[in-house]
Amino acid sequence: MIGVGLLGLGTVGTGIVEILEDRKKELEELLGEPVVIRKILVLNKKKPRKLNTDRYVITTDFKDLINDKDIQIILEATGDQDRAYGYLKEALIGGKHVVSANKALVSKHLEELSLLAEEKGLAFLYEASVAGGIPVLKALKDQLRLNRINKIGGIVNGTCNFILTRMGDEGLDYSQALKEAQEIGYAELDPRDDVEGLDSLRKLRILASLALQTRVGEEDILLEGIEGISKLDLELANKLGRRFKLIATARRVGVGFEAQVMPSLLKKESQLSGVCGAYNMVELTGDKIGSLSFYGLGAGGLPTANAALSDLLDIAVGSYSSKSPLGQEALTNLGGKLEASFYLRINKYNCELEQAFKPIIEELLFSGTQLVVLTKKLPLKEIYYQLESQSISKNDYFLARLEA
Amino acid sequence: MIGVGLLGLGTVGTGIVEILEDRKKELEELLGEPVVIRKILVLNKKKPRKLNTDRYVITTDFKDLINDKDIQIILEATGDQDRAYGYLKEALIGGKHVVSANKALVSKHLEELSLLAEEKGLAFLYEASVAGGIPVLKALKDQLRLNRINKIGGIVNGTCNFILTRMGDEGLDYSQALKEAQEIGYAELDPRDDVEGLDSLRKLRILASLALQTRVGEEDILLEGIEGISKLDLELANKLGRRFKLIATARRVGVGFEAQVMPSLLKKESQLSGVCGAYNMVELTGDKIGSLSFYGLGAGGLPTANAALSDLLDIAVGSYSSKSPLGQEALTNLGGKLEASFYLRINKYNCELEQAFKPIIEELLFSGTQLVVLTKKLPLKEIYYQLESQSISKNDYFLARLEA
Repeated sequence: MIGVGLLGLGTVGTGIVEILEDRKKELEELLGEPVVIRKILVLNKKKPRKLNTDRYVITTDFKDLINDKDIQIILEATGDQDRAYGYLKEALIGGKHVVSANKALVSKHLEELSLLAEEKGLAFLYEASVAGGIPVLKALKDQLRLNRINKIGGIVNGTCNFILTRMGDEGLDYSQALKEAQEIGYAELDPRDDVEGLDSLRKLRILASLALQTRVGEEDILLEGIEGISKLDLELANKLGRRFKLIATARRVGVGFEAQVMPSLLKKESQLSGVCGAYNMVELTGDKIGSLSFYGLGAGGLPTANAALSDLLDIAVGSYSSKSPLGQEALTNLGGKLEASFYLRINKYNCELEQAFKPIIEELLFSGTQLVVLTKKLPLKEIYYQLESQSISKNDYFLARLEA
Repeated sequence: MIGVGLLGLGTVGTGIVEILEDRKKELEELLGEPVVIRKILVLNKKKPRKLNTDRYVITTDFKDLINDKDIQIILEATGDQDRAYGYLKEALIGGKHVVSANKALVSKHLEELSLLAEEKGLAFLYEASVAGGIPVLKALKDQLRLNRINKIGGIVNGTCNFILTRMGDEGLDYSQALKEAQEIGYAELDPRDDVEGLDSLRKLRILASLALQTRVGEEDILLEGIEGISKLDLELANKLGRRFKLIATARRVGVGFEAQVMPSLLKKESQLSGVCGAYNMVELTGDKIGSLSFYGLGAGGLPTANAALSDLLDIAVGSYSSKSPLGQEALTNLGGKLEASFYLRINKYNCELEQAFKPIIEELLFSGTQLVVLTKKLPLKEIYYQLESQSISKNDYFLARLEA
């Protein structure tokens, strides 16, 4: 028996139970023994569930799982950060493999949990934490055996992508598109983690740390969200033959790196520009493999559960490595120092303002009530410097990168 | 030591040697022992090579490899079908793992070699045989553990895609675009395997047999190539807001399946339509994972060698299964019986011809010197029947599927 302890019975946890029920026969055939969910940890036993839980042991006490000698693998699918972190640490110390779908947790404790798993000779896998159902982490680890990865990133937040797609296709304004995303269940009631880019940043932190084999912390990533975008931006993008996408990207530059989550103005012909709705796409570039992309559903119960169970099966058949996948390179963070062109909208206008920005303007797109420009090629930090010297605060501008 | 016997020193074989030299240190660290190319089999020892072969043992006799007890893995990178088949069979019988990049060979002997490897408890892996560097077979096998796959396919021939891209973007005619592909080295001097669709068909045969878990033989796949395409087709496609791509696709329909390699008229917004030049894209649809796509370089020495070496590393670390990945389903071939709409150009025109085809025409696109139509929804076999009854032979028409 492969004994599993499941943490959480939300969308992903429910998907895990459903898939294991649906594939019971095939998995027993594959593994020569059944996969059994021995216990499920929840916060509230009385909460009504979509799933019939009669045949499962439900508990609110993690001790019931840690003390169950027949549980070899802990599958974590909670949204919780602190408590779940304690559980995963305890699980590894107690000799149990860990699979997590929790990007906030994995991002925060990546180094510590990776090293702890290595020390204990156990698996710590988290495919489901990045880009939902897309099996990009396993592919990335495979490519790292033969390649130096020079670039990784893409569209890793389905909520933002849905909002931008609806604004672009239907001419909705930001608040309408956000409301629609909330109604469908793509966006949370408090959507800040998604629209301000924090969710993308956590996923990029994981992708970049693996890909570049250097520590890329959350604090190393430049962050701009989509919460300030307006109908005017979409109209101007359309005139330029481009589309806005929230892009998370990290790249190696000499002995340094640059990592950012930022709205980007992409050419309509580009692959990333064609990623619509709640889909995700992750691209990597290696020195042997060239450019390689993965495209699929970045969220949803079944796809995300599918990714977590893929990790579980790798553990069950023994095709995982307990060695930490993190590398020893010490690349310098060049964030903000590398040149690029930007799209900048400032929420106010007067002649002095235009005059002040003149030295960095390549093309004036709109002026009057607001100032919208494409900048010359320059370091991002110079833009921030200009904004600050004109006392323009975060709520008064919208900034995007102009992709070549 | 991981002892390797390499068959072939063409583009892919040379790439294999280059990558192993470049990653010597990292691989020894990963595996705890070096990967050593013990012997290389070539047809002609005297042929001048790009590679410095002084430090390798080169032979023209396969016996030198089969008798070398330190060779555990045979890496096959020849273009040969019959001789190489004998070698691989002998290798498996002799207890050596096999990795092949040879799609014609793998397609022809898929069942036999899979079962032989299973019987011997050895690996038979062929990631490099489908879509070059794109690691789609490993991902497909992973997804099969948890999913019923309902559809697989995409753009798997870079030569055709390059030709179609150049015709579409630059207005070249077919022979100009083909000549350019030959000059760059994308197309062979005898380009028939590529442009008539046989190369795509072989790759689809492999993908579909794994994905649908039923035997899909080369003879089960409906085949139309791009060799008959003309500038007029491209112009009409452009007017329809569509692009021609050579699409290889197989799908499950109830207890049957349909598999075809055929030019398709895709909407410009579709992901596949955006695949340009020598790139490939493979899509699969599973009942849990939804739609998942892989995009990258479908050919080239380093990407293809990278895929073959990925197989080799899975063998070296033991994360492979010797169990045949082929399934036991017995789906009926519904090829040609399912309804679709088609783009049909006939290379001649008279009123009687238009009259004869009238019952199946949905929209007349062009008439005069030729007859070009979009058909109503109907089974493909009905089109073939109509063509035959009007004595229109293969050289006198061009046929494509109109994608919804």
